[in-house]
Amino acid sequence: MPYVFSLLLQLHIFSMEIIQCIIQRLHSIIEETPLYVVTNPYKNVPQYLKVMFQTTSSLCRDASVLGTNMVNAGDMNGSGNLMDFLDEPFPDVGTYEDFHTIDWLREKSRDTDRHRKITSKSKESIWEFIKSLLDAWSGWVVMLLIGLLAGTLAGVIDLAVDWMTDLKEGVCLSAFWYSHEQCCWTSNETTFDDRDKCPKWQKWSELLVNQSEGASAYILNYFLYIMWALSFAFLAVSLVRVFAPYACGSGIPEIKTILSGFIIRGYLGKWTLLIKTVTLVLVVSSGLSLGKEGPLVHVACCCGNFFSSLFSKYSKNEGKRREVLSAAAAAGVSVAFGAPIGGVLFSLEEVSYYFPLKTLWRSFFAALVAAFTLRSINPFGNSRLVLFYVEYHTPWYMAELFPFILLGVFGGLWGTLFIRCNIAWCRRRKTTRLGKYPVLEVIVVTAITAIIAYPNPYTRRSTSELISELFNDCGALESSQLCDYINDPNMTRPVDDIPDRPAGFGVYTAMWQLALALIFKIIITIFTFGMKIPSGLFIPSMAVGAMAGRMVGIGVEQLAYHHHDWIIFRNWCRPGADCVTPGLYAMVGAAACLGGVTRMTVSLVVIMFELTGGLEYIVPLMAAAVTSKWVADAFGKEGIYEAHIHLNGYPFLDAKDEFTHRTLATDVMRPRRGEPPLSVLTQDSMTVEDVETLIKETDYNGFPVVVSKDSERLIGFAQRRELILAIKNARQRQDGVVSNSIMYFTEDPPELPANSPHPLKLRRILNLSPFTVTDHTPMETVVDIFRKLGLRQCLVTRSGRLLGIITKKDVLRHMAQMANQDPESIMFN
Amino acid sequence: MPYVFSLLLQLHIFSMEIIQCIIQRLHSIIEETPLYVVTNPYKNVPQYLKVMFQTTSSLCRDASVLGTNMVNAGDMNGSGNLMDFLDEPFPDVGTYEDFHTIDWLREKSRDTDRHRKITSKSKESIWEFIKSLLDAWSGWVVMLLIGLLAGTLAGVIDLAVDWMTDLKEGVCLSAFWYSHEQCCWTSNETTFDDRDKCPKWQKWSELLVNQSEGASAYILNYFLYIMWALSFAFLAVSLVRVFAPYACGSGIPEIKTILSGFIIRGYLGKWTLLIKTVTLVLVVSSGLSLGKEGPLVHVACCCGNFFSSLFSKYSKNEGKRREVLSAAAAAGVSVAFGAPIGGVLFSLEEVSYYFPLKTLWRSFFAALVAAFTLRSINPFGNSRLVLFYVEYHTPWYMAELFPFILLGVFGGLWGTLFIRCNIAWCRRRKTTRLGKYPVLEVIVVTAITAIIAYPNPYTRRSTSELISELFNDCGALESSQLCDYINDPNMTRPVDDIPDRPAGFGVYTAMWQLALALIFKIIITIFTFGMKIPSGLFIPSMAVGAMAGRMVGIGVEQLAYHHHDWIIFRNWCRPGADCVTPGLYAMVGAAACLGGVTRMTVSLVVIMFELTGGLEYIVPLMAAAVTSKWVADAFGKEGIYEAHIHLNGYPFLDAKDEFTHRTLATDVMRPRRGEPPLSVLTQDSMTVEDVETLIKETDYNGFPVVVSKDSERLIGFAQRRELILAIKNARQRQDGVVSNSIMYFTEDPPELPANSPHPLKLRRILNLSPFTVTDHTPMETVVDIFRKLGLRQCLVTRSGRLLGIITKKDVLRHMAQMANQDPESIMFN
Repeated sequence: MPYVFSLLLQLHIFSMEIIQCIIQRLHSIIEETPLYVVTNPYKNVPQYLKVMFQTTSSLCRDASVLGTNMVNAGDMNGSGNLMDFLDEPFPDVGTYEDFHTIDWLREKSRDTDRHRKITSKSKESIWEFIKSLLDAWSGWVVMLLIGLLAGTLAGVIDLAVDWMTDLKEGVCLSAFWYSHEQCCWTSNETTFDDRDKCPKWQKWSELLVNQSEGASAYILNYFLYIMWALSFAFLAVSLVRVFAPYACGSGIPEIKTILSGFIIRGYLGKWTLLIKTVTLVLVVSSGLSLGKEGPLVHVACCCGNFFSSLFSKYSKNEGKRREVLSAAAAAGVSVAFGAPIGGVLFSLEEVSYYFPLKTLWRSFFAALVAAFTLRSINPFGNSRLVLFYVEYHTPWYMAELFPFILLGVFGGLWGTLFIRCNIAWCRRRKTTRLGKYPVLEVIVVTAITAIIAYPNPYTRRSTSELISELFNDCGALESSQLCDYINDPNMTRPVDDIPDRPAGFGVYTAMWQLALALIFKIIITIFTFGMKIPSGLFIPSMAVGAMAGRMVGIGVEQLAYHHHDWIIFRNWCRPGADCVTPGLYAMVGAAACLGGVTRMTVSLVVIMFELTGGLEYIVPLMAAAVTSKWVADAFGKEGIYEAHIHLNGYPFLDAKDEFTHRTLATDVMRPRRGEPPLSVLTQDSMTVEDVETLIKETDYNGFPVVVSKDSERLIGFAQRRELILAIKNARQRQDGVVSNSIMYFTEDPPELPANSPHPLKLRRILNLSPFTVTDHTPMETVVDIFRKLGLRQCLVTRSGRLLGIITKKDVLRHMAQMANQDPESIMFN
Repeated sequence: MPYVFSLLLQLHIFSMEIIQCIIQRLHSIIEETPLYVVTNPYKNVPQYLKVMFQTTSSLCRDASVLGTNMVNAGDMNGSGNLMDFLDEPFPDVGTYEDFHTIDWLREKSRDTDRHRKITSKSKESIWEFIKSLLDAWSGWVVMLLIGLLAGTLAGVIDLAVDWMTDLKEGVCLSAFWYSHEQCCWTSNETTFDDRDKCPKWQKWSELLVNQSEGASAYILNYFLYIMWALSFAFLAVSLVRVFAPYACGSGIPEIKTILSGFIIRGYLGKWTLLIKTVTLVLVVSSGLSLGKEGPLVHVACCCGNFFSSLFSKYSKNEGKRREVLSAAAAAGVSVAFGAPIGGVLFSLEEVSYYFPLKTLWRSFFAALVAAFTLRSINPFGNSRLVLFYVEYHTPWYMAELFPFILLGVFGGLWGTLFIRCNIAWCRRRKTTRLGKYPVLEVIVVTAITAIIAYPNPYTRRSTSELISELFNDCGALESSQLCDYINDPNMTRPVDDIPDRPAGFGVYTAMWQLALALIFKIIITIFTFGMKIPSGLFIPSMAVGAMAGRMVGIGVEQLAYHHHDWIIFRNWCRPGADCVTPGLYAMVGAAACLGGVTRMTVSLVVIMFELTGGLEYIVPLMAAAVTSKWVADAFGKEGIYEAHIHLNGYPFLDAKDEFTHRTLATDVMRPRRGEPPLSVLTQDSMTVEDVETLIKETDYNGFPVVVSKDSERLIGFAQRRELILAIKNARQRQDGVVSNSIMYFTEDPPELPANSPHPLKLRRILNLSPFTVTDHTPMETVVDIFRKLGLRQCLVTRSGRLLGIITKKDVLRHMAQMANQDPESIMFN
């Protein structure tokens, strides 16, 4: 009941907020140019966004931002407020500031405390017992809700994209909200041959000037195609800029960073969810060279964040919240490809940071629910779960491994080329005037894409359709240009098992068109990814690979047909045999290119395995994926997501990077030699004023507390934020605490003379178990500890004396320095 | 080249050793009763084995034991010896004793050192560069070799089991090494109906007394069946006892413990590999209620250990070796079920402890190679990868979820019952006279199994065949008793889509027989698992579930046929529809029972998914698996493997256990209040004799080194083993080191007067970065640190002063105490 109530209230607040916020924002747009465009125009994305967000946050702040301002909503159930005041005397203790790193160990121990409390209370009454049961089940409920919402959104997006993509070319007369396929499916002439000429679907030229053929009709259609594309793209970029700047990009780099323990408030908020969903439909329909798969992960994570904010277990604990988000990422990939197992492995391999077994199981549940929700919406109209369903009739042969490995090499090279060029272009966008005109940039790229794409049938259609066709095996009934082979009239064989045939005119035409489309896709994708619109990389990468693969496949097929007496073909490819499947080459090529760009391995192969549904082709896929990864790794270890994380300077400690240098903790810690000594607090000799001065003069996140400045023996660590809150609180509430009051971190402050000011006891906020290492600890161990325990900082001691401190930022800067990169590129703490 | 040479030498040594060892062991058997039976008869398994192993180890020691006596073999390539002597002055430094825990952090940093050395050397010459490449590739080579060997062994085992299982009933006249199926397949009368009566296959009664029917023939066959079973079982248990006591059981509990960082020398040795493979065939053929899946994981891990001992990268580093073993476990499951992805997830979820992403990818590779090797051997004769291939023709309906969940409940109850009874019986075996007669026990259980199993057709055949039949959908051509339905003569339908029909006499008979078989399996499995023979649990558990599931399935089917007007059936089960598939119920039941016993979740569903090859039935499987886990968890959190780990007292820190108690490090550390103070070394005031006395009087694994006994400021930690070696070494080699010599752990020992004894400098063996926590650290954090960083011990300090020490054993004992278990059950350090 409290949950249902909380949910309803939340929904109500949400809807009210949206309306209010739209009014306010529209108001500000009409009245004046938005402030942030003038003051800080897109120079440095996260910094800019930070400023922008802080500017607008007082206006209408997103209630479910990734942070803790949902605490109040979460507190509604039961005696949350009372409980918290007893244990934590100051509100806001235990929260984090925006663009800061969380402390995993602390979050975990807070959760254990919470759990302990609930368990002990559950023995008191039946009502408490039921509450504890509800609490234990809330994880599963959240997963169910995420799966349902993510699946529904994915289905809606698929349907809307279908309709709007077709809208660029024509409209359905019987019902304008039907896509081409739905329109012609419901018409009566649904025999197989008539489907392409169904009268209810009219191209724009037919509708407007009643012409379906001829140059003028072609030009009119061409023009309208470009216009639709431009208007979709313009609408999308405007929506992103005005309502949710965080909705741009694929979102995966930021989600990786957030999951590793970073706070970006609003990145997974409800506004982002709403705007990203809408603009994703618009940009995909506009025909830009981008996919919806990456953004769908972002959308699913926004769902995860929304639902986790409804349960205090998750909303109040940044660590637990990230468990939910990991599972949501799995649900996102699950609906993007219809591959639940692949989704879980993707979340495990690529996205997540802390992935306990419980999360594995819950991710799997969320991924399955999402996949089944999507299937019941059935957007592809074929009851299939997967995006590209393929079925091949012939096995592969050992000799084919050679072209498969070649495709792997191509994939690796494409990955390297793409990452280098894209990062160079994005850096240019950040540092030059280019970044000042994001709308113009989108408009120009859309226009170029539309102008070049329309004449070529392989770029005009949507990229997913293109990939589907390239993956397909040529059956007997296939009418596509790619299947225009010269049939032997004497041959009568079952339909499924068509022997290799010589290529017809259509295949040769298709080859040229594919080659042109390939070059175009390679170039335009580099400029598209990173613009201020939602954009995913999976589909364009797969398209590049599929085109290259299909061409190689047709080449091998024709070679085998015309030269079946060559040694390499003699054993397995006799005349009249169906030995080469070009569609399989397309699939292998797609896997290789996707692997080259993202450096996924296991999850990639599993996703592909789920698409084909058989272990038969796993060896070719794996050969290509491994080759592609090795080739790409030879040129640079970073995948596209890591590269974007570095570009933006996020504090991300990658579990995959191996630190192999021979430095010690003493080389990394602050203060360095020659720097002023470490700012510390003493346990029983500093006044409130001293501490306030220290806080004012430094911007450290916390201060070690020592016995005395002479002995430097460490007793604990105090967080800056909590110190400030405690002092403020004490000055407001506690009688007699003045600037002269002594601060005590000891257990029992001594009896003071009567006339001395009232002391301030602060042992409560002191972390008595700060993490320490000795100065001789090798940095590889320190890196390992930071990674595995998720620390924010670590104190360095030598034989019991405090020497210095190492923060996560110090570690990252040191790693960057060791890898010959600019350490100043790490920006946040 | 060095690798090839090392391999050949290794194989030569191996074969020589085997011959020598066989001679010696046979000698000892003939001459006298083996010592260990008299001295320490099976009272406490691991302790007994420890004693036994130490007794025989000087006689003929296994060269590839899981430990480091392969260092010399590994050193053969290149300048290994020289290198090691420069850096590590005493041989054997950095190795571990048997039945001790490894230090993961140290292993990792040793590997980084090694890697660093190779990288810096690779720039010196082309030869070094090639060597560094070979080193980098050796991981993949090991995986390939493991996959090939594990796949081959699995294939051989499958073929041998097939043949020997059939041998119990009869023999093939054309070639005695043919199994029933192979024999009749090669005969000419291979039309479908004649297969059961092929003349070349003769039952023993036909061959010996020329009778195939009648009571006397039946009794003769019955008798010979029991005799064969007894002789197989006797041979197996004798082989295990004489040659490789570690070959008994499923091996998974021990492998989990080893992977978590424990040393059991010889557990994964070549003897174990050989004997376990041979005896596995024998026991499975003997018809005992056990499976080969768990032992196959052990066999694969032995392969992994063997191949990793060929490469110094793995043989010298216990941490790296465990990465290989994790991948080998995946390969084992992969060949056990033909499910590579399920195998990887099994290794990740159930077996492994430290599973970096690199291992994930390599495990996948090993699992695939193993699966394809097995497929090319093709032991099932159907080119299928999977053990039970099933194909269903009808979907499932929402209403069926109710019986599926009921099956889940049954699975959970069975899991609880099995674990409780089995553990109780195993404890009885350990503590009473029962354990003294392992051979007799096996003989008795085999005899009972054979006597009861023969009359019932569902227990007479091998358990895998039984499961296969239960999973099967009744096609039109199925001649099995379970498919004896009354056909409607008027119905003419396609073969695949048979409507629900009323059950015939055969089905009713089968139901009774299945019920009896179910009760028998449930009881006998409890007594079988844990005997001194290789025994897996997967197949018996699945058989129990499949029998229960099939019976429920037939029940629902008949209910739906006879009462299709009931509300629950009305919507989806009209007369003439094929709505209930009893085979699916069997599969769901199998998953539920397996889940109840092992508490696997994701990997279980994925294995089942790979068996059926479709996402269609994942929801029923998941519903059953989740229910079964929840029901079983309600009665006790431990799965069967964890229960056996606890029974044996292995020091296993489970990642799944959550520690939620409110204790602090100070409550757990030694010394407790009232105990004598911690044994410490001082950095510059103790003599060699003092230290030798300390070592003699205590049995600690190491000693903290402090500045002085007064200040108690920690400077490092010295391992006992290395101290002993260093002192021994110094006394032997270094001039002037006598009992009066002072030991210095400082960087620069002071100048001593000329007449004082020569000092002993030991800074080299001092670990300068021991792990410390403060006394106020919550135990949940300490447990987390131990788990994630794989520590052996951790020092406890308060404001820089050393207070005490916490070892892994202390942590485990504390956890046992908190869970109201006997802390003394944790035995090893």
